Amino acid sequence: MKSVFITGCAGFIGSNLVDRLLADGCQVVGWDNFSTGQVIFLSAAKSNKSFRLVEGDNLNLPALTQAMAGCDTVIHLAANADVRFGLEHPGKDLQQNTIATFHVLEAMRANGIRRIAFSSTGSVYGEAEVIPTPEDAPFPIQTSLYGASKTACEGLIQSYCEGYGFEGYIFRFVSILGERYTHGHVIDFYRQLQEHPDFLNVLGDGSQRKSYLYVRDCINAVCHVVKSATAKSAKHGVQIYNLGTDGFCQVNDSIRWICDEMGLKPEVRYSGGERGWVGDNPFIYLDTQKIRSTGWLPALTIEQAVRATVRWFREESF
Amino acid sequence: MKSVFITGCAGFIGSNLVDRLLADGCQVVGWDNFSTGQVIFLSAAKSNKSFRLVEGDNLNLPALTQAMAGCDTVIHLAANADVRFGLEHPGKDLQQNTIATFHVLEAMRANGIRRIAFSSTGSVYGEAEVIPTPEDAPFPIQTSLYGASKTACEGLIQSYCEGYGFEGYIFRFVSILGERYTHGHVIDFYRQLQEHPDFLNVLGDGSQRKSYLYVRDCINAVCHVVKSATAKSAKHGVQIYNLGTDGFCQVNDSIRWICDEMGLKPEVRYSGGERGWVGDNPFIYLDTQKIRSTGWLPALTIEQAVRATVRWFREESF
Repeated sequence: MKSVFITGCAGFIGSNLVDRLLADGCQVVGWDNFSTGQVIFLSAAKSNKSFRLVEGDNLNLPALTQAMAGCDTVIHLAANADVRFGLEHPGKDLQQNTIATFHVLEAMRANGIRRIAFSSTGSVYGEAEVIPTPEDAPFPIQTSLYGASKTACEGLIQSYCEGYGFEGYIFRFVSILGERYTHGHVIDFYRQLQEHPDFLNVLGDGSQRKSYLYVRDCINAVCHVVKSATAKSAKHGVQIYNLGTDGFCQVNDSIRWICDEMGLKPEVRYSGGERGWVGDNPFIYLDTQKIRSTGWLPALTIEQAVRATVRWFREESF
Repeated sequence: MKSVFITGCAGFIGSNLVDRLLADGCQVVGWDNFSTGQVIFLSAAKSNKSFRLVEGDNLNLPALTQAMAGCDTVIHLAANADVRFGLEHPGKDLQQNTIATFHVLEAMRANGIRRIAFSSTGSVYGEAEVIPTPEDAPFPIQTSLYGASKTACEGLIQSYCEGYGFEGYIFRFVSILGERYTHGHVIDFYRQLQEHPDFLNVLGDGSQRKSYLYVRDCINAVCHVVKSATAKSAKHGVQIYNLGTDGFCQVNDSIRWICDEMGLKPEVRYSGGERGWVGDNPFIYLDTQKIRSTGWLPALTIEQAVRATVRWFREESF
């Protein structure tokens, strides 16, 4: 991992990863279409001689192929990560996740690059029957277009590992929090409370159980695993790891932590029901024994990650 | 199931299904791009007033949407079914399976049609760890672009069931044999032996264990399950059934049966190795308890299905 190509380099996780790999002494080529990525997140990286930024879209295969030339590893993070509104534009996950990932793989093949790390999601388990959910949980039924598209991406990567000798690292993330976090319920709640500090609208009944991981812990795990090259000797050339903390919280817990950090005691107004929206998964909790067995451990608990995120909003004057 | 839209209606399974549904008194709209379908397979259907044939491609969404109007059920069979040569054109499974299925679902949504039956495959299990493989086997690693694309199609259908209230029937087929069978190892061996009756070239070492099902048994199962409407009350609106006989044979068994039907005793020349080609699955055997519990039973064994297929070749002077 000397020369790394990162798709979605200007996003929340991508830009943190760029900074980390540059600090590790890697050459980094960053690729982003800036549909949601923010150039300000790359302001430190842009002054580093080891960083090259290329603006482009994964749906433009020739440009992607050209930009990737000379790299030895691809970390593919760019995606439509909008789980909640999938049903409003059902083609978006197919285009920006499934087809985009096919293009990334084809660009790699054209360049003779065979090592790929991929940000998948705990959503591939749908509403898991087994909780905490291990990597080899029963073959799931997909409950969101987002989860379905990430499952499709995983299948493509796995087929390239088997068929073309690729080395694949698939990480099934829980929700990630921390510096540069830009969408999800923590920022929604924060913004609501800035606008009206006396009340908070919550989708569902607040009892939904979710799992979160701090962004630097996430990046540490990805770097640790890819460097250890465990996929080389793995069956079918691919390693799959759940990535999360060893626990979960309720939406009501995170409301408490957010309000505490903001010094507020709002009235909480619930929309009601077990799910926040169609396809919302009321309980996400991944079994992370496999990634822990590699020696990786998260530094922050879920509570610490939520609080760190709120503090970052305040520092950045969001 | 009064008015049924069948994609891939001129194919092996599709044309048999058209004949069956017409015999049952259904209105049938057949859709095929005739890339591999054969108009001769529809010669009986075309003289039936309840049948309407529309030539078109699943990648043409407006035409697909128009053709589907007025139907109450879609049976989506059209696909690139070429498992073996996936690596030679890696975009084909994505286009003709994943994206095509997305179009079928979107055409249904535009027409307010919510019932879909889909021909998936035992290949979605990759190289299964659990054999016989049940529907809820451990989350598989994909080993072929074909299996990966069918998994992607399943995920799309499942998401439409959850998100848009569709009623989905997913059938994971083993290889199907019988009248109008046009590609796979039985016809490959048959054609070789017509050309050179004294020897037979076999990929792999002949020990590969595979499962087959007779086409009319396959169609009986699909019609039986869709009519019983089990998905309406199923979790997430979707039912998944493995579809096969309760057993398997070795490639060497089917060679024996084919030669016996042809009255030949060729020298068998093996290419060697456990797999016939990259991605070939050396052991496919599905657990079919779930479909059997609905009351369906296959009429023919694997041996009878292989022999019936060879006899059909001879009758049709293939």
